Amino acid sequence: MSQQALDRIVAALSDIELIDPHSHINPHDPASHNLADILGYHYYTELAHSAGLPADRIEESDISPKELVSRLVPKLDSLDNTIQLSWLVEIARELLDVDIDRVTSDNWEQLYDAAEQKMSAPDWESEVLKRSKLKQVFLTNDFDDPLEGFDTDRYIPCLRTDDLVFHLHQPSVRERVANATGVEVTDAKSVWEALGKLFSHFKSKNAKACAISLPPDFVPTHVTDEDAEEAFMRLTDGRPSIEDRQVVSRFVFWSLAEMCAEHRLPFDLMIGVNRSVYPAGVHQGRDLYDSRCSLSQYAELFNFFPQVTFPVSVLAPTMNQELVSYAWIFPNVVTSGHWWYSNIPAHIEPDCRARLQAVPRTKQIGYYSDMYKLEFGLPKFAMYRRVLAKVLLEDFVIGHGWSEERAVDLGQTVLRSNVESIFFAD
Amino acid sequence: MSQQALDRIVAALSDIELIDPHSHINPHDPASHNLADILGYHYYTELAHSAGLPADRIEESDISPKELVSRLVPKLDSLDNTIQLSWLVEIARELLDVDIDRVTSDNWEQLYDAAEQKMSAPDWESEVLKRSKLKQVFLTNDFDDPLEGFDTDRYIPCLRTDDLVFHLHQPSVRERVANATGVEVTDAKSVWEALGKLFSHFKSKNAKACAISLPPDFVPTHVTDEDAEEAFMRLTDGRPSIEDRQVVSRFVFWSLAEMCAEHRLPFDLMIGVNRSVYPAGVHQGRDLYDSRCSLSQYAELFNFFPQVTFPVSVLAPTMNQELVSYAWIFPNVVTSGHWWYSNIPAHIEPDCRARLQAVPRTKQIGYYSDMYKLEFGLPKFAMYRRVLAKVLLEDFVIGHGWSEERAVDLGQTVLRSNVESIFFAD
Amino acid sequence: MSQQALDRIVAALSDIELIDPHSHINPHDPASHNLADILGYHYYTELAHSAGLPADRIEESDISPKELVSRLVPKLDSLDNTIQLSWLVEIARELLDVDIDRVTSDNWEQLYDAAEQKMSAPDWESEVLKRSKLKQVFLTNDFDDPLEGFDTDRYIPCLRTDDLVFHLHQPSVRERVANATGVEVTDAKSVWEALGKLFSHFKSKNAKACAISLPPDFVPTHVTDEDAEEAFMRLTDGRPSIEDRQVVSRFVFWSLAEMCAEHRLPFDLMIGVNRSVYPAGVHQGRDLYDSRCSLSQYAELFNFFPQVTFPVSVLAPTMNQELVSYAWIFPNVVTSGHWWYSNIPAHIEPDCRARLQAVPRTKQIGYYSDMYKLEFGLPKFAMYRRVLAKVLLEDFVIGHGWSEERAVDLGQTVLRSNVESIFFAD
Repeated sequence: MSQQALDRIVAALSDIELIDPHSHINPHDPASHNLADILGYHYYTELAHSAGLPADRIEESDISPKELVSRLVPKLDSLDNTIQLSWLVEIARELLDVDIDRVTSDNWEQLYDAAEQKMSAPDWESEVLKRSKLKQVFLTNDFDDPLEGFDTDRYIPCLRTDDLVFHLHQPSVRERVANATGVEVTDAKSVWEALGKLFSHFKSKNAKACAISLPPDFVPTHVTDEDAEEAFMRLTDGRPSIEDRQVVSRFVFWSLAEMCAEHRLPFDLMIGVNRSVYPAGVHQGRDLYDSRCSLSQYAELFNFFPQVTFPVSVLAPTMNQELVSYAWIFPNVVTSGHWWYSNIPAHIEPDCRARLQAVPRTKQIGYYSDMYKLEFGLPKFAMYRRVLAKVLLEDFVIGHGWSEERAVDLGQTVLRSNVESIFFAD
Repeated sequence: MSQQALDRIVAALSDIELIDPHSHINPHDPASHNLADILGYHYYTELAHSAGLPADRIEESDISPKELVSRLVPKLDSLDNTIQLSWLVEIARELLDVDIDRVTSDNWEQLYDAAEQKMSAPDWESEVLKRSKLKQVFLTNDFDDPLEGFDTDRYIPCLRTDDLVFHLHQPSVRERVANATGVEVTDAKSVWEALGKLFSHFKSKNAKACAISLPPDFVPTHVTDEDAEEAFMRLTDGRPSIEDRQVVSRFVFWSLAEMCAEHRLPFDLMIGVNRSVYPAGVHQGRDLYDSRCSLSQYAELFNFFPQVTFPVSVLAPTMNQELVSYAWIFPNVVTSGHWWYSNIPAHIEPDCRARLQAVPRTKQIGYYSDMYKLEFGLPKFAMYRRVLAKVLLEDFVIGHGWSEERAVDLGQTVLRSNVESIFFAD
Repeated sequence: MSQQALDRIVAALSDIELIDPHSHINPHDPASHNLADILGYHYYTELAHSAGLPADRIEESDISPKELVSRLVPKLDSLDNTIQLSWLVEIARELLDVDIDRVTSDNWEQLYDAAEQKMSAPDWESEVLKRSKLKQVFLTNDFDDPLEGFDTDRYIPCLRTDDLVFHLHQPSVRERVANATGVEVTDAKSVWEALGKLFSHFKSKNAKACAISLPPDFVPTHVTDEDAEEAFMRLTDGRPSIEDRQVVSRFVFWSLAEMCAEHRLPFDLMIGVNRSVYPAGVHQGRDLYDSRCSLSQYAELFNFFPQVTFPVSVLAPTMNQELVSYAWIFPNVVTSGHWWYSNIPAHIEPDCRARLQAVPRTKQIGYYSDMYKLEFGLPKFAMYRRVLAKVLLEDFVIGHGWSEERAVDLGQTVLRSNVESIFFAD
């Protein structure tokens, strides 16, 4: 494999302006203010905790940002092999202009100060977007988010629906629905009415997707209105059984898919997460998965809603092989990014390779950042581009005798064009 | 990795005359007549459909071959990344002598005409076999195939038994059995009698294997004649329960294994397919799998029939790791090819690598084409040989210091010799 | 990838003196006496049997070592592709100073004689340890092993507990407990007392770990003393149900974890083996696995015992991805080696790569030999080092621009330092 050819392909892919189709950016405060905003990212806190730093050292209330960083830094040496640490070094070099190759007790304060200075510039947000070649960024919005006070063309709303599907038995969630829509959710009909209002609101604010994360044992099926009524009665009575909650979850989920059809929104499925498997972990560092999960659980859904596009992310790397096969056959199943525990080059490379070899090129969303702060877009997309370039070079330029231009064009399709054709088709 | 060494190994492997141990060739009409026979292969129709071409555009009755191709061609651009499209280009170049690197709206008619001209030559079938270095090709024959009117030394019969195991509850299948054997299947004893006649018939016609594809939830177990009788009674009464059908399936499957022992035929197990997961898909583009399947489901079978060789194919790539381990331990379990959704280089390479590192060389059937038309043998075996050559070079020549000759000899064993020793031993 | 750089990294890793954290060495007879001790290793006997050598040819009683070797040698040609055969060749070259590249009917007697001569030297054991750079080797000791008559600083005891957890319903096992501890095990309290004595004994003899292998369907949960009592009553009555045995297994397992906490011993979990799947196989060549197993089965355990370190090995290669994720999050979960069916480069490379990219470097035990005779340490660790060096070069030197020194330091951490920090912390 020629290093020069690889470098050329990486460079060509780096020229592509990006639309990030999934993030957790707060549009009212998108960029970091100091190094603690960077190191506070759950990947660092959970890895530092995993390497032995007690959770209360990290999550003590009222510690200053600088104090938090000072506590995390000594643990970074134990993590310096991880891809996440390489993102930190890349942020330092490419965004903060600090030329280091690791963060140590000796240099962290210098980095801290440089970060604070850079990040206090009034145009820092724009600067980060520009250096990252990010044109637009999708958000993850609570269903009752008013979606006001920010530029919805730069930060694209996305209706996140976990609470609606899995927590409607909580009075507080039903109250939030009532506040957001004026509808008291008490039965199938009122769910429909409420969802209709939420979708109309989101669509009016430029939302381009509906999204949800799902546990590995979730099996969506069609629940009739009649079957749902009894479960709703006990739900609002406050004494739903496990089965009632399951019926309601399935009913609301299915209704969301119907709304996606009606309002022509893709429905992002992020399949496979078990919440709070490690309850003593740090914030956002408690979830894991059970790889005994199959997309066959979703076959009924994919069949029932041919008019809805489902960009599917899987958490367990072993599930990528099913994802490739299901996207190969079902017109409405699209492969989507490399999620969370799958988001390391060791998994991205085989997953990306299989997708490029077997799924129509128009049905692949190459990557999304999943970031909480804008600064992570640059190193995460850079990591993906390097893997993508390697696969393009090995499998297409060398393997099939393609020109580099043709290979880069394929890269452009999965990196950028498909985001437009899939989410902005309407 | 030296490109020259790789090329030398590919070239040496390409000199090996092949016996294709599994295909769906129709021996009465083995080669294509026009480009529609090529593009009508389910891989293209299902991928084009997956990329957005409506099924009825593909499956409309009474459209001409040229019209079908004209409808598929505009979608090929969306598939040009897939390994299947690379087979098409390789067929064009290596068999049709048309030097293109993609099929477009501009060049397809030229290709169509060239194909029609080539394929109308009286020796086209022989020409394809010759260019593909194919000496013999295994078939997939219905149990009631008379196996007449073709050269059974060139096209080797194989008794396919899915209908017998899974559809004996259908009167039409029992009728076919009666027509083929003169035996009315009503109980365990008559099943035995009928199977005996089928096996004798197939053996007399040079059959070299019995084969079946199996769903992921199938668990073969020994069913006694007594246990089978009640189920058969209800089956022939026309009111079998799900359990009755399951008992009959297991009984017939086990009986087939006994017949394989008695008639000394290997029993090809193709494990893991769920039929019609996507019923609205195009013909042969409806099946998928559930990777939650284990070869431990077959342990009782492998133990019970030490005298029967089981060439095992798995559909879910994740199952390859179990297949390697089971073939490592069980003398009668043989790894067999790279089936369907596993048949892309991204999966073949790690699967082939693991097999070559851990399974006795004499117990590996490297590849079969699974083709419906002869023209696919060339690009499919070529794809496999390139992967095989890469693994031989990296793991054996570079990794163990083997000479290229020794590595090629290993390749020859899995590509050719084992097909002979496993299927032609008798 | 530069071959010279790879060679330099392999050489640097080869300079590291090793502590082997898991083996089955008999400390009273650690090294081989002849080639039959090498070829009698179950990997060779089971592969030769799998390739067609009848078990009774291998396991006939009263055959001489030379006769056994003479029977195995003709089958080695069928196995010469396996990584296990490459170990044999490497033993011949590096330890026996016989320069061969395969073992054949022509050269085996020469090798046999050379082995016998070398192995009869009084310092053979020390010579093997020296050439293998092995400083210390962990053992696998039955719970009633007196641990006497050998140097427990060179051969580190490890309390193996399979019998206690899974076979306590056998009177013979309870008798062995009584003989070893003076405690008749009849209820929860006496189990505690007996385990306390066993742990004290092992700790007094320099034991550094407790270990167990577990079937894929084992789900450890907390069993209260009260719940355990009834099961114990029926157990000692001799009429335990399957459920009773399960309750006792879980109770004893949980008690072992509590003992590990109290006595500050890491608890090695080797997850996923099904025993005697192929009962007609040769000794130690009968076990396989079912990959439908998840570390989520162990979440309750990991949460309940934050103070116990669990070095986890998985048998099914597909489970490595869960292992990486669980070690990424749980502070007390450590990745441990590449076990048995996962112990081939085809699986080690992706597994090692994922671990190095996502698990804190301090939480990875790179490799253990699992060997029965000392001679296997050299080729097995050499195999691992070559894979490790490749990953270090590709992912860290080339991928992240690290110096080779920094990459080798990471290698040293997983190869050696972590064994010390994890097992010798106390």
